[in-house]
Amino acid sequence: MEVKALTFDVFGTVVDWRSSVIHEGQRLGQTRGIAIDWAAFADAWRSGYAPSMDRVRQGELPWTCLDDLHRMTLNRLLSQFGIEKALNEADKQHLNRAWHRLAAWPDSVTGLQRLKSDFILATLSNGNVSLLVNMAKHAGLPWDCIISAELVGHYKPDPEVYRKACDLLGLAPQQVMMVAAHQDDLQAASREGLRTAFIRRPLEHGPDQVPDISVDPAFDLIAEDFHDLADQLSGH
Amino acid sequence: MEVKALTFDVFGTVVDWRSSVIHEGQRLGQTRGIAIDWAAFADAWRSGYAPSMDRVRQGELPWTCLDDLHRMTLNRLLSQFGIEKALNEADKQHLNRAWHRLAAWPDSVTGLQRLKSDFILATLSNGNVSLLVNMAKHAGLPWDCIISAELVGHYKPDPEVYRKACDLLGLAPQQVMMVAAHQDDLQAASREGLRTAFIRRPLEHGPDQVPDISVDPAFDLIAEDFHDLADQLSGH
Repeated sequence: MEVKALTFDVFGTVVDWRSSVIHEGQRLGQTRGIAIDWAAFADAWRSGYAPSMDRVRQGELPWTCLDDLHRMTLNRLLSQFGIEKALNEADKQHLNRAWHRLAAWPDSVTGLQRLKSDFILATLSNGNVSLLVNMAKHAGLPWDCIISAELVGHYKPDPEVYRKACDLLGLAPQQVMMVAAHQDDLQAASREGLRTAFIRRPLEHGPDQVPDISVDPAFDLIAEDFHDLADQLSGH
Repeated sequence: MEVKALTFDVFGTVVDWRSSVIHEGQRLGQTRGIAIDWAAFADAWRSGYAPSMDRVRQGELPWTCLDDLHRMTLNRLLSQFGIEKALNEADKQHLNRAWHRLAAWPDSVTGLQRLKSDFILATLSNGNVSLLVNMAKHAGLPWDCIISAELVGHYKPDPEVYRKACDLLGLAPQQVMMVAAHQDDLQAASREGLRTAFIRRPLEHGPDQVPDISVDPAFDLIAEDFHDLADQLSGH
């Protein structure tokens, strides 16, 4: 069965969340006279991501969209970094929406434009719909369809998310390829029958990141970026 | 409050379902040696639309997506027009998916491209997600977001559909403008607090259609086509 649709993880795979959040923090810090280590802040914010989704997964919280989980983590960090009082509520809302304004990796927009002529391109992200729509407008990401955990009421890597994506696209799992820079996401997709493409994003966690060299050989494709992905898919 | 997003009715407002379905029927008819009045067939198919959604609305059927409602109506019509045996199952599936291949009105693509630079453009249609995605690929419709009754489990004009669209977009109803060629759709949107733009589509029901001249004066805008809509919105 031919692949008809590519579904994309977004944070880290399509956009460079870390540089973007650091940059937004630094700009806000300059305006408000705050000098903290914004890289440490960004990393701590992202570290709160999986545990916050686990609270939803385990029923400790009812369904809570990612904007609201981000805000809960942000409130904690503002206190930890001692800058809670230096920002007003509008500042905090603006900073929380930095995740709506993430910058694409250099190959993302042109790579997606190439892929768009041959495939349906959908997000398959834990970001809420409005976050993904606003990010796409901001970064120029040419999605055909926004699919979000919010539409399922489950966060990846719960199996329901991958199944629902196939249902919504009207495709069999084998007609859908999950594209991600994270192996656990692809392994979960594979368990539901989707094809898998691993994208190397060695800078996702910054210049000091230890590269993940032990890539699961079961993935259908391993690509250096979206142009490499387009090359490999057109050669198939 | 400024309008940030435009949500579009699709069948009749963005695409010319009638000419498209007639054309698909005629082509299939030529291949299979069937000579029936395909205009009458298209009109009868569309006439089955509202009653089939009413069966879902009244609980007579569980949630059933539009592809499946179309197929139920199609099966009845194939029998009524005496062509049930002239088509094989693949033909019937192909014909049912004519609704995924509808052609845009002449102003739709270029008009939407203009509007896309200033607004989030979302479908807000009773068509299922895959129908809307495939149609957009086929006709070149540059949506930012596919919002469908399928995501809500209610068909327009049920109020849940309009409310859910605003929620998913993260916007207040006053920041969203419903665009449609059908007054009942706009009136239902208006009751939920959305703004409204009526588009005249005098050929939706064919050349013999009696034009709807008594347009509700409560609508925020009345436009001749999507370029006129873009002109009026940029003048605001």
